[in-house]
Amino acid sequence: MADKKQAIEKITPMDEDFGQWYTDIVKQTKLCDYSSVKGCMVICPYGYAIWENIQHLLDAEFKKTGHENVYLPLFIPESLLNKEKDHVEGFAPEVAWVTYGGSEKLTERMCVRPTSETLFCEHYKNTVQSWRDLPKLYNQWCNVVRWEKTTRPFLRSREFLWQEGHTLHATSEEAIAETRQMLNIYADFCEGALAMPVIRGRKTDSDKFAGAEATYAIEAMMHDGKALQAGTSHYFGDGFARAFDITFTTKENQLAHPFQTSWGVTTRLIGAIIMTHGDDRGLNLPPAVAPIQAVILPIAQHKEGVLDAARALEEKLRGVCRVKLDDSDNSPGWKFAEYEMRGVPVRIELGPRDIEAGQCVVGIRYSGEKRVVKLDDLAEELPKIFSEIQKGMFDKACENRAANSYRVTKMDEILAHLEDGDCFIHAPWCGDEECEDKIKEKTGVGSRCIPEDGKLDEGAKCVCCGKDAKHEVLFAKAY
Amino acid sequence: MADKKQAIEKITPMDEDFGQWYTDIVKQTKLCDYSSVKGCMVICPYGYAIWENIQHLLDAEFKKTGHENVYLPLFIPESLLNKEKDHVEGFAPEVAWVTYGGSEKLTERMCVRPTSETLFCEHYKNTVQSWRDLPKLYNQWCNVVRWEKTTRPFLRSREFLWQEGHTLHATSEEAIAETRQMLNIYADFCEGALAMPVIRGRKTDSDKFAGAEATYAIEAMMHDGKALQAGTSHYFGDGFARAFDITFTTKENQLAHPFQTSWGVTTRLIGAIIMTHGDDRGLNLPPAVAPIQAVILPIAQHKEGVLDAARALEEKLRGVCRVKLDDSDNSPGWKFAEYEMRGVPVRIELGPRDIEAGQCVVGIRYSGEKRVVKLDDLAEELPKIFSEIQKGMFDKACENRAANSYRVTKMDEILAHLEDGDCFIHAPWCGDEECEDKIKEKTGVGSRCIPEDGKLDEGAKCVCCGKDAKHEVLFAKAY
Repeated sequence: MADKKQAIEKITPMDEDFGQWYTDIVKQTKLCDYSSVKGCMVICPYGYAIWENIQHLLDAEFKKTGHENVYLPLFIPESLLNKEKDHVEGFAPEVAWVTYGGSEKLTERMCVRPTSETLFCEHYKNTVQSWRDLPKLYNQWCNVVRWEKTTRPFLRSREFLWQEGHTLHATSEEAIAETRQMLNIYADFCEGALAMPVIRGRKTDSDKFAGAEATYAIEAMMHDGKALQAGTSHYFGDGFARAFDITFTTKENQLAHPFQTSWGVTTRLIGAIIMTHGDDRGLNLPPAVAPIQAVILPIAQHKEGVLDAARALEEKLRGVCRVKLDDSDNSPGWKFAEYEMRGVPVRIELGPRDIEAGQCVVGIRYSGEKRVVKLDDLAEELPKIFSEIQKGMFDKACENRAANSYRVTKMDEILAHLEDGDCFIHAPWCGDEECEDKIKEKTGVGSRCIPEDGKLDEGAKCVCCGKDAKHEVLFAKAY
Repeated sequence: MADKKQAIEKITPMDEDFGQWYTDIVKQTKLCDYSSVKGCMVICPYGYAIWENIQHLLDAEFKKTGHENVYLPLFIPESLLNKEKDHVEGFAPEVAWVTYGGSEKLTERMCVRPTSETLFCEHYKNTVQSWRDLPKLYNQWCNVVRWEKTTRPFLRSREFLWQEGHTLHATSEEAIAETRQMLNIYADFCEGALAMPVIRGRKTDSDKFAGAEATYAIEAMMHDGKALQAGTSHYFGDGFARAFDITFTTKENQLAHPFQTSWGVTTRLIGAIIMTHGDDRGLNLPPAVAPIQAVILPIAQHKEGVLDAARALEEKLRGVCRVKLDDSDNSPGWKFAEYEMRGVPVRIELGPRDIEAGQCVVGIRYSGEKRVVKLDDLAEELPKIFSEIQKGMFDKACENRAANSYRVTKMDEILAHLEDGDCFIHAPWCGDEECEDKIKEKTGVGSRCIPEDGKLDEGAKCVCCGKDAKHEVLFAKAY
């Protein structure tokens, strides 16, 4: 027990060293572990259970909107990867190459998929003939590999888990609508289930996905004021279809190229949860994705009737939420600290006096609030408490973002705000890539996106060159 | 429509060419598709949905028995793979090697996991210290790669999907019990959900998993009389723990090596379903894993009220089962053939006269039976009909196996039985590997397992050498 207590104390305070705080949380709460495979991680049960909850909720949304799951090969032959010029330029430098099968050298090397546009294109080319075959609304849950130089658990690793949607449509309007629909599904999921506010926007041309006509993204503010791209949705036009010679016969019996999209979120979302809601005492999980939503802690459990009552309560709550009873012989104090660190949203304390009074004490992790609830009402109250927590956590994250976001009109203002720490900067921009680069060079913040709900004051001028502004841009340092 | 009808007719009869029949089914029912990645397949929506149902049901069983899901890296450094001698000898010839990351040659090449014992061992070594940390009951759902020379969709492919359980225990008794528990979970799942009878048994030493002390397997008979290994469960003793230097402190404060198991089933189960239940008209899916359990086919759908009634019925059945209404403009005849081919277990016909009479016609795919059911009773009847079908399909498969299984005492009998086609041969065996090899050489059938419920007649002699028999062995040709 002593060493476990020490473990809790080993979380470095956020303000002291945010990077170390993050690493400590990830390790101490056993979300993941290192392995001898450089840049790859072991996702431990507690971390994987969060991912399963994310999968479960998102997959239901995908299916509700007509998408079907499939599974395409892990490998991409080099010649296939090379078919779309921009795409291969973007990805070739960061793929892992398989060159041998057993003891035989391959005649053509294959990369481990960094993303699967090329494979989907090949499959679509083989299976789509007429407008009756469209749309194709496919998704796959799988692993991908990108040979990153610097890696961090969940945020950037050589292998990660994700889902990648790939859809094919008869018209560009339909494909654009799909791109937007999926961005909104991601945004609603992040704000609803992860209690994490996001900014929906379009990437500037310099930051588009390799091969895309337009890339849309959701950007969230982490506790340190940096931005994290939480999901992307790409519109490809018919560029890939042309490169892969995918055609279909229209209703009017014409041969045409279909229009395409792709969209994805990754295990990075677990990192986003940590850095949006965590604090110096540890993790802080939104109930919607928490592996344990409520933990029952018996007080004075050696006293007669306490453990029986705790077990009966666990049984009662089993159909209501993901509940765990900790009847181990660790002290209540140790257990408090442990489940606080692990970010369990609700703690239910149950001691002899509570039992006598037919009540329990409910502790809320994110706010520290405690309230007394009648045992008879608990099953009914818990779902309401979870909703309250989701909303409370979301509001808190919104407040944090509001307190660290600034609208500026001059370059100097950017520098002034950044002196107090990283933050979100909303600034007018002329649309010129040169200005974008200059802002990054002078201030260190890059363009994250052109927010969907961004607005320019009348006569607004580019924060860099002073020419007429075309867009409001969100600038920030990014993960 | 004309070309679709043709497609159905293109299924080669089973008796004519079983291999071609299998390939036709897989392609025509769109379970999977080929890709330019040799030996790897595209699992299409209909095939993947079966896998999702398998995952869903098995994962619940794993969790019920205390297992937790994790995710370990895709890659294994060569030095790690080399740590257990038998294991590396078994797998090295069939792994894919990654030698480059981007444009840089790796200092140590890595294989794409063919199985993950070595990675789990490394993780356990880092995380297990005391008896309090045991047992570790981990499982992962993932892809693996084995560089096979000859491949067939679902049955043998260079990449496939599976789950691999890896557990660590303080005592050998516990580990052996785990090995048996998981074998039984697989067997019950195959017999219950897949309606596929299996023989539970132990592999002979020549057929053990590379590095295992004992390998248990379930063997099922396919329609052509060949055996398909449907799942395996391995007991490792403390061999891996010694090779990887995994130790723990016992309750008595001694340092000891823990005992280990692993167990897995793969997308091969989809192939097993096809070859157990399919017929010349196509697939035949057990309701428990069928993506569509019941399809509603409106008859004379142009007539007033028919489509409305069909839609109302679909709505009503949505909470009861996985239901689909086909209101496309294809003819009822085409639809009958289509859903028959796709193996949808229940077809619900609904025409103007049925509606008037408040009834529908329920067609059972596997038996060809038709029955009239009152519309008001259908929601209640369907689950019962599904159970009936599960049992009926299971019984039918058992009968087929019984009709093609023989108990023999002499080598000549084996040859005589095999003249009429592939079959299961139960024969007494002395336990000598030389005899096992000789039987294979002379008859073409290999030992599949030593059945759990096998029995030797008193004084039984080895079918090969005539010495005293030690076991009854199941011999068969295998996929």
